[in-house]
Amino acid sequence: MPDQVPPKAPPKLEPGVVAAGVYAKGKRVSDIEIDDAGKWRKKPGHVVWIGLFEPSGDLLARVSEQLNLHPLAIEDAEKAHQHPKIEEYGDALFIVARTAQMVEGKIAFGETHLFVGRGYIVSVRHGASATYSTVRAHCESCPKMLSHGEDYILYKILDFIVDNYMPVLETVRHEIEGLEDKVLHESISTEQVRRLYALRRDLLKLRNAVVPLVDICRRLEHVELLPIDPEMRPHFRDVTDHVQRIRESVDSLREVLAFAFEASLMMGQAQQSTITRKLAAWAAILAVPTAIAGIYGMNFDHMPELKWRYGYFAVIGVIVALCGFLFYRFRKNKWL
Amino acid sequence: MPDQVPPKAPPKLEPGVVAAGVYAKGKRVSDIEIDDAGKWRKKPGHVVWIGLFEPSGDLLARVSEQLNLHPLAIEDAEKAHQHPKIEEYGDALFIVARTAQMVEGKIAFGETHLFVGRGYIVSVRHGASATYSTVRAHCESCPKMLSHGEDYILYKILDFIVDNYMPVLETVRHEIEGLEDKVLHESISTEQVRRLYALRRDLLKLRNAVVPLVDICRRLEHVELLPIDPEMRPHFRDVTDHVQRIRESVDSLREVLAFAFEASLMMGQAQQSTITRKLAAWAAILAVPTAIAGIYGMNFDHMPELKWRYGYFAVIGVIVALCGFLFYRFRKNKWL
Amino acid sequence: MPDQVPPKAPPKLEPGVVAAGVYAKGKRVSDIEIDDAGKWRKKPGHVVWIGLFEPSGDLLARVSEQLNLHPLAIEDAEKAHQHPKIEEYGDALFIVARTAQMVEGKIAFGETHLFVGRGYIVSVRHGASATYSTVRAHCESCPKMLSHGEDYILYKILDFIVDNYMPVLETVRHEIEGLEDKVLHESISTEQVRRLYALRRDLLKLRNAVVPLVDICRRLEHVELLPIDPEMRPHFRDVTDHVQRIRESVDSLREVLAFAFEASLMMGQAQQSTITRKLAAWAAILAVPTAIAGIYGMNFDHMPELKWRYGYFAVIGVIVALCGFLFYRFRKNKWL
Amino acid sequence: MPDQVPPKAPPKLEPGVVAAGVYAKGKRVSDIEIDDAGKWRKKPGHVVWIGLFEPSGDLLARVSEQLNLHPLAIEDAEKAHQHPKIEEYGDALFIVARTAQMVEGKIAFGETHLFVGRGYIVSVRHGASATYSTVRAHCESCPKMLSHGEDYILYKILDFIVDNYMPVLETVRHEIEGLEDKVLHESISTEQVRRLYALRRDLLKLRNAVVPLVDICRRLEHVELLPIDPEMRPHFRDVTDHVQRIRESVDSLREVLAFAFEASLMMGQAQQSTITRKLAAWAAILAVPTAIAGIYGMNFDHMPELKWRYGYFAVIGVIVALCGFLFYRFRKNKWL
Amino acid sequence: MPDQVPPKAPPKLEPGVVAAGVYAKGKRVSDIEIDDAGKWRKKPGHVVWIGLFEPSGDLLARVSEQLNLHPLAIEDAEKAHQHPKIEEYGDALFIVARTAQMVEGKIAFGETHLFVGRGYIVSVRHGASATYSTVRAHCESCPKMLSHGEDYILYKILDFIVDNYMPVLETVRHEIEGLEDKVLHESISTEQVRRLYALRRDLLKLRNAVVPLVDICRRLEHVELLPIDPEMRPHFRDVTDHVQRIRESVDSLREVLAFAFEASLMMGQAQQSTITRKLAAWAAILAVPTAIAGIYGMNFDHMPELKWRYGYFAVIGVIVALCGFLFYRFRKNKWL
Ligand SMILES: [Mg+2]
Ligand SMILES: [Mg+2]
Ligand SMILES: [Mg+2]
Ligand SMILES: [Mg+2]
Ligand SMILES: [Mg+2]
Ligand SMILES: [Mg+2]
Ligand SMILES: [Mg+2]
Ligand SMILES: [Mg+2]
Ligand SMILES: [Mg+2]
Ligand SMILES: [Mg+2]
Ligand SMILES: [Mg+2]
Ligand SMILES: [Mg+2]
Ligand SMILES: [Mg+2]
Ligand SMILES: [Mg+2]
Ligand SMILES: [Mg+2]
Ligand SMILES: [Mg+2]
Ligand SMILES: [Mg+2]
Ligand SMILES: [Mg+2]
Ligand SMILES: [Mg+2]
Ligand SMILES: [Mg+2]
Ligand SMILES: [Mg+2]
Ligand SMILES: [Mg+2]
Ligand SMILES: [Mg+2]
Ligand SMILES: [Mg+2]
Ligand SMILES: [Mg+2]
Ligand SMILES: [Mg+2]
Ligand SMILES: [Mg+2]
Ligand SMILES: [Mg+2]
Ligand SMILES: [Mg+2]
Ligand SMILES: [Mg+2]
Ligand SMILES: [Mg+2]
Repeated sequence: MPDQVPPKAPPKLEPGVVAAGVYAKGKRVSDIEIDDAGKWRKKPGHVVWIGLFEPSGDLLARVSEQLNLHPLAIEDAEKAHQHPKIEEYGDALFIVARTAQMVEGKIAFGETHLFVGRGYIVSVRHGASATYSTVRAHCESCPKMLSHGEDYILYKILDFIVDNYMPVLETVRHEIEGLEDKVLHESISTEQVRRLYALRRDLLKLRNAVVPLVDICRRLEHVELLPIDPEMRPHFRDVTDHVQRIRESVDSLREVLAFAFEASLMMGQAQQSTITRKLAAWAAILAVPTAIAGIYGMNFDHMPELKWRYGYFAVIGVIVALCGFLFYRFRKNKWL
Repeated sequence: MPDQVPPKAPPKLEPGVVAAGVYAKGKRVSDIEIDDAGKWRKKPGHVVWIGLFEPSGDLLARVSEQLNLHPLAIEDAEKAHQHPKIEEYGDALFIVARTAQMVEGKIAFGETHLFVGRGYIVSVRHGASATYSTVRAHCESCPKMLSHGEDYILYKILDFIVDNYMPVLETVRHEIEGLEDKVLHESISTEQVRRLYALRRDLLKLRNAVVPLVDICRRLEHVELLPIDPEMRPHFRDVTDHVQRIRESVDSLREVLAFAFEASLMMGQAQQSTITRKLAAWAAILAVPTAIAGIYGMNFDHMPELKWRYGYFAVIGVIVALCGFLFYRFRKNKWL
Repeated sequence: MPDQVPPKAPPKLEPGVVAAGVYAKGKRVSDIEIDDAGKWRKKPGHVVWIGLFEPSGDLLARVSEQLNLHPLAIEDAEKAHQHPKIEEYGDALFIVARTAQMVEGKIAFGETHLFVGRGYIVSVRHGASATYSTVRAHCESCPKMLSHGEDYILYKILDFIVDNYMPVLETVRHEIEGLEDKVLHESISTEQVRRLYALRRDLLKLRNAVVPLVDICRRLEHVELLPIDPEMRPHFRDVTDHVQRIRESVDSLREVLAFAFEASLMMGQAQQSTITRKLAAWAAILAVPTAIAGIYGMNFDHMPELKWRYGYFAVIGVIVALCGFLFYRFRKNKWL
Repeated sequence: MPDQVPPKAPPKLEPGVVAAGVYAKGKRVSDIEIDDAGKWRKKPGHVVWIGLFEPSGDLLARVSEQLNLHPLAIEDAEKAHQHPKIEEYGDALFIVARTAQMVEGKIAFGETHLFVGRGYIVSVRHGASATYSTVRAHCESCPKMLSHGEDYILYKILDFIVDNYMPVLETVRHEIEGLEDKVLHESISTEQVRRLYALRRDLLKLRNAVVPLVDICRRLEHVELLPIDPEMRPHFRDVTDHVQRIRESVDSLREVLAFAFEASLMMGQAQQSTITRKLAAWAAILAVPTAIAGIYGMNFDHMPELKWRYGYFAVIGVIVALCGFLFYRFRKNKWL
Repeated sequence: MPDQVPPKAPPKLEPGVVAAGVYAKGKRVSDIEIDDAGKWRKKPGHVVWIGLFEPSGDLLARVSEQLNLHPLAIEDAEKAHQHPKIEEYGDALFIVARTAQMVEGKIAFGETHLFVGRGYIVSVRHGASATYSTVRAHCESCPKMLSHGEDYILYKILDFIVDNYMPVLETVRHEIEGLEDKVLHESISTEQVRRLYALRRDLLKLRNAVVPLVDICRRLEHVELLPIDPEMRPHFRDVTDHVQRIRESVDSLREVLAFAFEASLMMGQAQQSTITRKLAAWAAILAVPTAIAGIYGMNFDHMPELKWRYGYFAVIGVIVALCGFLFYRFRKNKWL
């Protein structure tokens, strides 16, 4: 899982800082110190891009001082477990997004907080989320687009977050389809119930992470937000479209699980019904020898049948005949 | 299934291209090469109409170059599994619609992507969808309407897509009505549960395909979209109306299936209840000979009844009388 | 059911035409031929009122030609099974409404299509719907109101359609109340389930017919629609109010049926629980003689009790005492 | 129930008229005849206040003539079972509200129709509703407020109607809490199901009565309605707030009943499960003597155990030991 | 629980008054008498802050007189059990909020009513809610912020109320997670049902308290309300964000409980199904000795097997073999 932990940083990077660079005309000009960010950001045409991973309060305070971030946003960025949202503070944006990926067969959720303003973008990652070095590499590989500045970087990060939901969703879908088959073809087991339950909880968490993301992307696409160039709107619309698709898949899967739950109740009832009928049929068949044998086991002095030469054989015959008849009847009306 | 595959194309058509022609004053002027589309489309009063089927990325790129399509739209058109939607790119429209038809007794879903702009319309089909050669033939047969241009062609394609949902829906409705009868008149079986489940999933997929189509048609009808002539609005409203009707039918059928599910739970309970009562009644009746015979099967030395001349017959009589009485009682209160 | 079929028409009426007349100043001026409708409708202050019942395509085409109806509306009017709606075509309105009435104890749905424009109103009935001759008679009886023209006639027809839902709803309500009693006081039967199911389906159909009617009436009341005089608005609001009330009754009844379903599940469970406890109690009581008699039915040589003078009577006494004690216990904790 | 019937009226009051007076500067000027209402109402600063109880059509017609009420409103006021609503007719208001109160331990619903215009207010009561003489007395006791005129009277009547819902709601809440305890602590009975059902129906009716009242009060508070003085808005907002609180209580109680229903299903299942296990355990214990005694009850000539001196006692010992062991095991795993 | 009761007040504080002071430039100027509040509040730059706990009607009347509060708001503040809301009375605000905290392991709800206007803020607490002395201390510790005046104090009180929900929610979440485990791993018990039920009711109450708070905060954030400075909006947005997060957690937990309920039904069914199969298997195995022993317990004179030397042993062998075979079969298909 080398993706999880921040990559080996060049010696000058302090703890909590994954990367810090400045870009101009779509090209990286230089790596920078956190405490120089304020100077660089003010140079026309320059964009400071800082990536943090679970930073200390102190580091955040220094970043905030350099870039003049709002205290309420910094307060949120310091702790994880924020609600996904987009907030404007003057001409700056603060965005919280939840990220998801598969770690050892389970969905691991993380959080990314983004500060975007004229001349800078800061990403703060908490918990299990892929590093944005891939995004950085990709951005650096097409200088023409990167020359758009901080809004293009914001678009690429959101696009990356949304794309990372896809394999998670595929895994869940695959698990659900496996379970669906079991529910419809085997008799219900407590193990299955536990798996159904776990899937429902996972989908609930996915939904809670994705639904606010739709609103965030839509606001970036529609509303007049200061640092967002109108030219970038089709790109944010593309992200909205993808996150919308993920949301609809999550909703469909939730509905499929609800169907599976109801189908499983019905299967249980159908099977219970089959077993009850089968049991009843066998009980009826076995009641015949019990009742007849009980009667001829009585100790009356005068029971003429007991004296008959072939009484025993006759009774056995009657028992066999009656049982056979019942068996045939139950077979016919499908109880057996 | 000759409808599924693109029709035998005239020799000049390259792979992936189903048809490519140019129209003026409602009449086909000529078949064209993809690489001439740009020239033709710019001639006043001329409309280029290209039909593609699962085109290669290369072919799409050439079409895009000729007609100046937006890269984000092209990116979507290259892969299937897009979310149905309508997007404006400058004065061009990009539409994704899901199509449905019956293939070998099952619903097969496909996708159609449409690029519409001044002087051109391009359709891209993925998966199981009827070819639009019928639409082409129909359009060519009424030049007066076709002279409206690309928006009329768009209307005819959407109308065709929507009309193709009708027989699918009828098949599903027919299946549901069959199942309804079974649920209400037979005892529940695992086979029925599986069919109910499959129908619910099919309706969910239909719903996911149809619901966004309503929005697409409504936007074509109401919003000021560049390539759509206001005169065409009643036509798009007619499509909205039809797709709306399909959507309501899907919703009704979903509700009917939910009713059927609940009814089946109740039927199961009613039947279970009947069987339990029947079982209990027979168990009670059979307990009589068992208990009495058990008592007279004891080996006490002094059991006066055993010595009686007609003791055995009396006991048999008592057993028969008691059983008869119980049977009569259970009959009366409908347990048997 | 003389209401169902069009009344015996005067000889000049052609098949499919129920009535065709022209009105001025609130009075009938004359009966007219379909092919003269265009002329009459153009005379100032004159209103043409045509009533059709399942007309042929040809007849519709002639009406359409006279009154200049829109081809898309005519296309719809030709086939039944349209979705209830209101559509504007230029300065004309096209309205589709579903009608309901009791026919032989079952709800029969029909359809009425209305074309309304300056100087004319055309009604097209399909399937089971009451004839509008009552409306015509009523209109003719108050010339002052009728002198308002086509919008007053439209109001009276919609009012009549909505009033006809009332007895249907009352029948359904009555049936539901009967079933409610049964569900709460008898043990659940498959017959009851079938009736519950049928009522749910009927209410679903009623709802599908009534819900769009609310929107239609509201649009007639609020929106600036060309042929509707603002003075007529309180009348359309009155219809909206009535159809709204029907819709709320339908929704309430649907909820009542859902309650009844859940109550019936609970009743089933309560009854099952009672029977299970009763069964268990009797099984316990009967197990006593079976077990004891079994023991004294063993054939050991040395079983001292068997030799006792009053062993048999003692054992019978013990059995009776134990059974009595158990019976008393079960009675006390309400299992019996 | 002296509240239900109109109070003993002074001799001059005709049947159906509960009170009829005229007010000026917050004081009652005089009692009036219905047929003088028109004159009085036109005097500046005078307000006519008429209270009717199930009036005849003729009486209503006379009132209508005096105060110039709209025929459609009069048509509604004549029959009970109107949908709660507010309607404007020119500069007059017509309001229908449903009232509720406890009568002999059951909720009794009634209806009040109110006509309000410049210089008059008419209340028409149908069915079980408290008389408004309390309101009248209260109004007369604070002339300062009453001098506001008809809108103040309207406010006091609506406030009175809404306040009367409170004790009804408290009774229902109390009943539900009693039932909740039973459901969670006793085994489910058919009687409980019937009470749950009755409560659900009552709450549905309460909801149907209260929900439209919220809208009515909100419109009186927000919309520019002719006879309502903007100064009175905080008062109508206060009523909205109270009716809103009632509505939320009704919704909460509905949800509580839904929880109780589900809890009762689960309790039923838990109890069923307990009984089944208990039954199974006792059946297993009792099967031991039955099987063993059956074997030693066989009549084979050569069964060595039967000859043993202490065979019988050994077998009894084995039976007791096995039963004891089973009993201990079942106790341990909580089946008994 | 020292938090619950108002702190020991300095001698001059009358009963019902927790604190009463006046602030200027962010610093406390002086403690004041209630009857001087009116004078102080009018001094420019001064803010009167009064804290009451379940005040008498008389005390409230005096406060109201000093600060000119609206009678309808005072009427509400006198009684607890108000619906959470925000109301404008001229240039004053009246806010009702519900508070929650854990008291002896249970959620205790209280109420706070806030009157805010130019130069004053009055808080009225009812029932179990934390005292606002912490808020007061915190405000006094940062004079710069406090110099904003009454809107800052309002923000701090709401923030404090919302923050107090967090530990309550964590307790509930912890309880639910414990119950979840039990439901999925143990067999369902009536105790569990009661706990599930209690949690559902608690969450319903939490939801009823929190949902209106979202609207209140949103209105403080967005609407132009007189005493709220636009500069304070980011602070109210921060509160909205936190209360929104609480609301979503409550909704998620409600959904989790609904899942747990359904899972518990399924677990119950799966377990019932397992027990039924086990019971059936053992019943079948035990039926073998019973039936065979019954037959050889019959008293016929001519039963050849009874005479056989090893008849008894053969029959025992057959019984053992049959039972063993059945046991093996049931094991194989997982019934045992
Ligand atoms: Mg969240
Ligand atoms: Mg992407
Ligand atoms: Mg959330
Ligand atoms: Mg959201
Ligand atoms: Mg895309
Ligand atoms: Mg893409
Ligand atoms: Mg069509
Ligand atoms: Mg979809
Ligand atoms: Mg969509
Ligand atoms: Mg049509
Ligand atoms: Mg619809
Ligand atoms: Mg359900
Ligand atoms: Mg249609
Ligand atoms: Mg009517
Ligand atoms: Mg419909
Ligand atoms: Mg509709
Ligand atoms: Mg009316
Ligand atoms: Mg339910
Ligand atoms: Mg009427
Ligand atoms: Mg009140
Ligand atoms: Mg209502
Ligand atoms: Mg109603
Ligand atoms: Mg109030
Ligand atoms: Mg509310
Ligand atoms: Mg009040
Ligand atoms: Mg806070
Ligand atoms: Mg509340
Ligand atoms: Mg609210
Ligand atoms: Mg904070
Ligand atoms: Mg925050
Ligand atoms: Mg459910």
